[in-house]
Amino acid sequence: MNFNVKPVSNELCEKLNHKINQKTKPPGSLGKLENIALKIGNIQNTLTPTLNNPAIIVFASDHGIALEGVSAFPQEVTYQMVYNFLNGGAGINVFARQNNIEVIVVDSGVNYDFKDAKGLINAKIGYSTKNYLHEPAMTIEECLAAIQKGADIVDKVYKKGCNIIGFGEMGIANTSSASIIMNKICDIPIEMCIGRGTGHDDSGLSRKKEILKRAVEKHKIDNDPLKILSTFGGFEIAMCCGAILKACENKMIVIMDGFIITSALLIACKLNINVLDYCIFSHKSNEDGHIKMLNWLKAEPVLNLELRLGEGTGAAICYPIIKSAVTFLNEMASFESAGVANKNQ
Amino acid sequence: MNFNVKPVSNELCEKLNHKINQKTKPPGSLGKLENIALKIGNIQNTLTPTLNNPAIIVFASDHGIALEGVSAFPQEVTYQMVYNFLNGGAGINVFARQNNIEVIVVDSGVNYDFKDAKGLINAKIGYSTKNYLHEPAMTIEECLAAIQKGADIVDKVYKKGCNIIGFGEMGIANTSSASIIMNKICDIPIEMCIGRGTGHDDSGLSRKKEILKRAVEKHKIDNDPLKILSTFGGFEIAMCCGAILKACENKMIVIMDGFIITSALLIACKLNINVLDYCIFSHKSNEDGHIKMLNWLKAEPVLNLELRLGEGTGAAICYPIIKSAVTFLNEMASFESAGVANKNQ
Repeated sequence: MNFNVKPVSNELCEKLNHKINQKTKPPGSLGKLENIALKIGNIQNTLTPTLNNPAIIVFASDHGIALEGVSAFPQEVTYQMVYNFLNGGAGINVFARQNNIEVIVVDSGVNYDFKDAKGLINAKIGYSTKNYLHEPAMTIEECLAAIQKGADIVDKVYKKGCNIIGFGEMGIANTSSASIIMNKICDIPIEMCIGRGTGHDDSGLSRKKEILKRAVEKHKIDNDPLKILSTFGGFEIAMCCGAILKACENKMIVIMDGFIITSALLIACKLNINVLDYCIFSHKSNEDGHIKMLNWLKAEPVLNLELRLGEGTGAAICYPIIKSAVTFLNEMASFESAGVANKNQ
Repeated sequence: MNFNVKPVSNELCEKLNHKINQKTKPPGSLGKLENIALKIGNIQNTLTPTLNNPAIIVFASDHGIALEGVSAFPQEVTYQMVYNFLNGGAGINVFARQNNIEVIVVDSGVNYDFKDAKGLINAKIGYSTKNYLHEPAMTIEECLAAIQKGADIVDKVYKKGCNIIGFGEMGIANTSSASIIMNKICDIPIEMCIGRGTGHDDSGLSRKKEILKRAVEKHKIDNDPLKILSTFGGFEIAMCCGAILKACENKMIVIMDGFIITSALLIACKLNINVLDYCIFSHKSNEDGHIKMLNWLKAEPVLNLELRLGEGTGAAICYPIIKSAVTFLNEMASFESAGVANKNQ
C-alpha cells in the first residue's frame, strides 16, 4: 500500500487570482465560488480547468456492531438499499441523474449474497465486519485489501476519463464506526462524536453512547490510523479511504460528502496529509460531530442544507455549485473584454 | 394598481408530508430540500410539482444619489453592464446558461440611450432617478408606472409557460436605496442597514453612511410603502416590486436574490403579505444588512456562499438546489415501492 499523493502546485495561484479579479464583478463578490475556482485551477494546474465525466462511487457494507442495536434501522436495510441504488430509486440516483453524474455501486462487504446483480461491482471483503464490542472489526489484511480495492476501482474510473469524483456510503450502523474514528484521530471525547444517525430518539442515543464507550474502552490501541481503521472501521470506510488516496494520487478533484465519508478522509489524511489539497467539502451534515470533524480539518463546507442522508447525496447536490465556480472562471467576461469601467481608484 | 395575491392553499400539506416521509431515507434527512419541496407542492397545490421554463429578469436603472459618490464604481458601469448582459458575458448569463434559465434584461431607467439594442426590453421610466439627498427619487406616478411595467413584463413571461422566476438588478448606487427602504420598513437604525456595496473601504463606507443619514433626515415621510419607494427607491426596485406582486398573483415560484431584490420584497410584502408564501430565499448575501432583512422576514436562505454580486446570480446559482427538491419528491422510491424496511418502531 503505497500512495504517492503530491501537494498541488501553486505556481498559477497568482495568475488565477488575477483572472478571477478581472471578471466583471466587484472583487471577492463571488465568495466561496472564487475559492473553489482557485482550488480547482491549482489542482489541475491550469487557468482553464474542466470537469470531465463526474462520478460518485457508493460503497456499501454491513457492520457487526449493528447487532447491538446502535442504529434506528434494521441491518437488512443495507442490502435492500443496494437494490434501490441499482434500480435508480434512491436519493443518490435521483440527484446524480439530475446533474449528469455517473453512480457506481460497490458491494464492499454487505451481509447478503447479491449473486450477479446487474450493475453492482463485487468487491466484497466479507459478509459484514465483526462486532467490535468483542473483537476487531476486521484483520489488518482485510483492511489493506479493502483500501487496495477502493484504489483499484477509482483508478478504473479515472482511466475512463473522470477527473472529479465523489464518494458515498451505505451501511447500517456506520455512523458508529465514524464516531469512534473521529474520537481516535481528532482526540475529541467520544460522547461529543456520537449523534442520532438515521434518527435515534433520546433513549436510542443514550444506548448508542453507552455501547460505543464500552467498545472504545475494550480496545487499548495506539494512534496508528490503520489500526484504528481495522479495529473500528467498516469495509466501506476502508475502501473509501483507499479510493480517496488513489483519486488524489491521480490529481482528481474529490468531493467530500458527510459524516462517514469524512471519517474515511480522517484516516486518509493521517496516511498522507496532501489529500486535503484535492478535497472540496460539499456540505455540513446535520449529524452531530460532522461540524467538529470539519473544524478539525480546517475545512469550509460549501452547503449547509441540513442533510444527513449519506449515499453521497451531499456531493451530488453540491456538484452544480462546483460547476458554477469553474464556469464563471472560464466563461465570464473581463472588465477589459466587456469594456466595463473598473472600480474607482 | 391592484394585485390579487392569495395565500397558498395548505390542503395538500399533510399528503405532501406523508409522501416526503415515505421516501427511502431517514425522516427529515433531506433537511432544507424537504421544506422547499413542501413549499412548492403547496404553491402549485399538487403532489407532483414541476418547474417549467425558469427565467430571471434583470432590471437595470440609474440613481441620482450615485453623483454623491456613494458607490465604489462610476455610474457608467450600469449601462456598460447592460451591454455585458446582452452579450452574455456577465455572471448572471454564465450561471443562467449553465442551469438552462432564460435571462431577460430590462432597461428600467438607465442613464443611457440604448436605441434599439438587441434583446433589451425598453421599459425606461426616465434617465436615472433624482438625487434623494435633495428631492424625492421619483414621483408617485413614475413609481406606479414602474410597478405596472414590472407586472406586465412578468405576466408576458408567465403566459409563455414559465412557473418559476427569479429577479436580479443592476444599478450603481442601488444598495443605498435598499438600505433606506430597509431602515424605513423594518425600523432598523440606518447605520445598521448600510454595507460596503460593491466594495467600499472604511472611508468610503463612512461617507456613504453620512450621506444616507442626511437623506433620511431630509424627507420626513410616514410609513406608507409607496411613499418610501418613490422617495428613496430606484426604478429597478419599483419595477421588481411590481414583478414580485404579479408573479405571486400568478402563483409562480419566486426565487429571491440578495440585498436589493429583497428590499423590493419588503415593499411588496407591505402591500400584500401573501407574497411571502411564494418566495424561496436563494441565499444570504455578504452585503451587511441582508441577514437582518431575512431575519425580519423570518426567511431561511438556502445558500450562504458569501456572494454579493447581485444581477440575480444567487437565484441562478441556487436553481439546481430547488430543482433537487422537486426531483426527489417526484422521483425517489418509497419504502414500499423499493421493498426497503422502515425504521424500527
